[in-house]
Amino acid sequence: MKQAPLQDATLEALAAHVFAEIRALSPDSAGVSRPAFSGIETKVLDWLAEFARAEGLCVEEDAGRNLLFCLPEHAEAPRWVLIGSHVDSVPMGGNYDGLAGVVAGLMVLIRAARGGRGLARPVKCLAMRGEESAWFGACYLGSKMLTGQLPAEELAASHRGDGRSLAAHLEDLGIDTAPLAARQPICDLDRIEEYLELHIEQGPLLVERGLPAAVVSGIRGNFRHRLIRCIGQAGHSGAVPRAYRHDPVLAFAELMHRLDDTWDHLLRTGRDLVLTSGIVGTDAQSHAIARIPDMLGFSLDIRSQETAVLAQMRDYLRDQMDDIARSRGVRFETGPEVAVAPALMDPDVIARLEAAMARSTGAAFTMASGGGHDAAVFAQAGIPSGMVFVRNRNGSHNPEEAMDLADFMVGTSILSAYLGGEE
Amino acid sequence: MKQAPLQDATLEALAAHVFAEIRALSPDSAGVSRPAFSGIETKVLDWLAEFARAEGLCVEEDAGRNLLFCLPEHAEAPRWVLIGSHVDSVPMGGNYDGLAGVVAGLMVLIRAARGGRGLARPVKCLAMRGEESAWFGACYLGSKMLTGQLPAEELAASHRGDGRSLAAHLEDLGIDTAPLAARQPICDLDRIEEYLELHIEQGPLLVERGLPAAVVSGIRGNFRHRLIRCIGQAGHSGAVPRAYRHDPVLAFAELMHRLDDTWDHLLRTGRDLVLTSGIVGTDAQSHAIARIPDMLGFSLDIRSQETAVLAQMRDYLRDQMDDIARSRGVRFETGPEVAVAPALMDPDVIARLEAAMARSTGAAFTMASGGGHDAAVFAQAGIPSGMVFVRNRNGSHNPEEAMDLADFMVGTSILSAYLGGEE
Repeated sequence: MKQAPLQDATLEALAAHVFAEIRALSPDSAGVSRPAFSGIETKVLDWLAEFARAEGLCVEEDAGRNLLFCLPEHAEAPRWVLIGSHVDSVPMGGNYDGLAGVVAGLMVLIRAARGGRGLARPVKCLAMRGEESAWFGACYLGSKMLTGQLPAEELAASHRGDGRSLAAHLEDLGIDTAPLAARQPICDLDRIEEYLELHIEQGPLLVERGLPAAVVSGIRGNFRHRLIRCIGQAGHSGAVPRAYRHDPVLAFAELMHRLDDTWDHLLRTGRDLVLTSGIVGTDAQSHAIARIPDMLGFSLDIRSQETAVLAQMRDYLRDQMDDIARSRGVRFETGPEVAVAPALMDPDVIARLEAAMARSTGAAFTMASGGGHDAAVFAQAGIPSGMVFVRNRNGSHNPEEAMDLADFMVGTSILSAYLGGEE
Repeated sequence: MKQAPLQDATLEALAAHVFAEIRALSPDSAGVSRPAFSGIETKVLDWLAEFARAEGLCVEEDAGRNLLFCLPEHAEAPRWVLIGSHVDSVPMGGNYDGLAGVVAGLMVLIRAARGGRGLARPVKCLAMRGEESAWFGACYLGSKMLTGQLPAEELAASHRGDGRSLAAHLEDLGIDTAPLAARQPICDLDRIEEYLELHIEQGPLLVERGLPAAVVSGIRGNFRHRLIRCIGQAGHSGAVPRAYRHDPVLAFAELMHRLDDTWDHLLRTGRDLVLTSGIVGTDAQSHAIARIPDMLGFSLDIRSQETAVLAQMRDYLRDQMDDIARSRGVRFETGPEVAVAPALMDPDVIARLEAAMARSTGAAFTMASGGGHDAAVFAQAGIPSGMVFVRNRNGSHNPEEAMDLADFMVGTSILSAYLGGEE
């Protein structure tokens, strides 16, 4: 027996209620903290289960102790579209990073359950544990577990608080770690038709462009150097003429200036790239105002959703370091590179999400994701995946993240339009 | 009664003996340590007094407990040329920084005393205390005391070891601090015709040019910023597009790149300049590989012996910071600037030192001094001053400084040629 069709304003108020209740379950001195695989996380999932049941949805728990919600008529479906996200947060984080995607999935289901936009195909909403790297040093733990992609070293990784391993924390929750260690999927991947995820944007693009939401084209891959050391030669700041200097600070400045120029050029030719040196420093033990430093260390994080651009930048970086090393008589010690491949969303899913966005809002807008998301893990597992971003101020992973509920409702309406039949 | 004329090889062996004895009086775990206004410094002066008397020189102590040496026939001269330098050293320093200038003065006198190149004018050699800033945080204390230029805050400055004031240390030595506090000269400046100083070069220029010595044209002045903060805006390294970034690291790189370009240009047009950012760093409390930093701090030390170049660079720095702040949406907080005016050596003394060098070595070579020296203080006091540099490897203020005695003898022969009559 269907309830009365729901007004969007009523649905928005319901979402606001869910966000407020869960915020109240997980307060920290600033923002919220919902540690991965913790009791707080379980409490949040328990609250969501009770809420979903009250809304007439079916609730099941999977082998990773994540929750799945669906309409009663889809409980026994052979295959379904998954709308997934995570309920954990970083320490002193915002309430929306992760949780918004779970609430969006619930709103799509509740809209259908209450006689609003129906679902043309079976849909399940997945509320996952353990996405944030803040707790065990590695990210996407929940989705890697589900898809059989959790590396052994991550299963053994220790918790930032108590130092115990992820495996120990999982066993506390009654999760069988044997299939995880064997890197076997703990859900039936063949039954997942597509994976969809709504997330707040972690950058300022939608704010700057004045758009409430976007379709995501892909998740940028990256290559990173934790610490590149530029080694020069110390000397008296007043007494060494320019021609005889081996100044690592000026070498670094020249390198960053060249990278910045090339970045600008690649953007002008329509390529995707972001580039950051987040950690920079001379040696605190020996640096002084009147001393040419002998060393400057810096990190480098270069991201693109285009594998070719990453390869090009890797070559360019090496060539420029070689060139500057020669011309300035310095040496670059790059240390190990860590690389993550770009995760492209499925072209067909993107096209249909763009069409759904155009139907919902009048015009489609598509952008790359700079941050990583569980959707990358499902895409890696061969499941056609798609994402929707919602406008958000002040970035994520901090208490100041700020999503308007009206924007959130635009995001959920794109998902509903995507999954619904003809209106 | 004159001794037998001295061979240069004998004089070199005598200098080697003096350096070795004084090194043995002031050993540290590495190199030597001769703290300013300390017992070790007094012991070194006592040794020099005994050595000078044995060589037939007159020795007197001045009101700053520095020593003056001269030929007996010049003890009652109304005016004299002063060859000065300091005997103190930095902690774990080299043996030659300062001491070489005192030994050079003694060698000039001994060469004359033993019937070598004579002196056309009365000459006194001054062995000063307290030049290094390592002990009380301020430099040139001995020469500032002599010339009435010691600021009150430096008289009150505390010792890095025992924390007691410079005034207390001076009183321990029986030095009357009343005239110092009144900023009165404690020697008769009118009786000093010229001030000459020999010093090891603290940069690599003479090594690189293959020259044993040089005449110094002037001591570079500078302006310095201890800490300039470039303030940008933090953000997700992957999620913020280039156009919306306010990255202080790239702003710093652009600024340093422009300063470096302008430095190169000014050198090509024959101007004197050196430029160093010795301390650079993002905020260790908040920086991360995957975060656009909100702040980068850096020091800046810009030196030239040309007042006009310093003024030009000050304007250029301000203009470039303004320009980059506008174009990149960052802010530069420069904090206070500390400036020291260039101290030019006397043009007539320079010309005559160049002529003496040409006579001694076949060709004159003149260069700027990057480090500061007591000669700047005497020049500031209105006394025509000149300096001779001696080739030295590995900079100064460290145990690896390395002067060849043959080069030192070239330096002393320039002074002898300058001060002597016709051969």
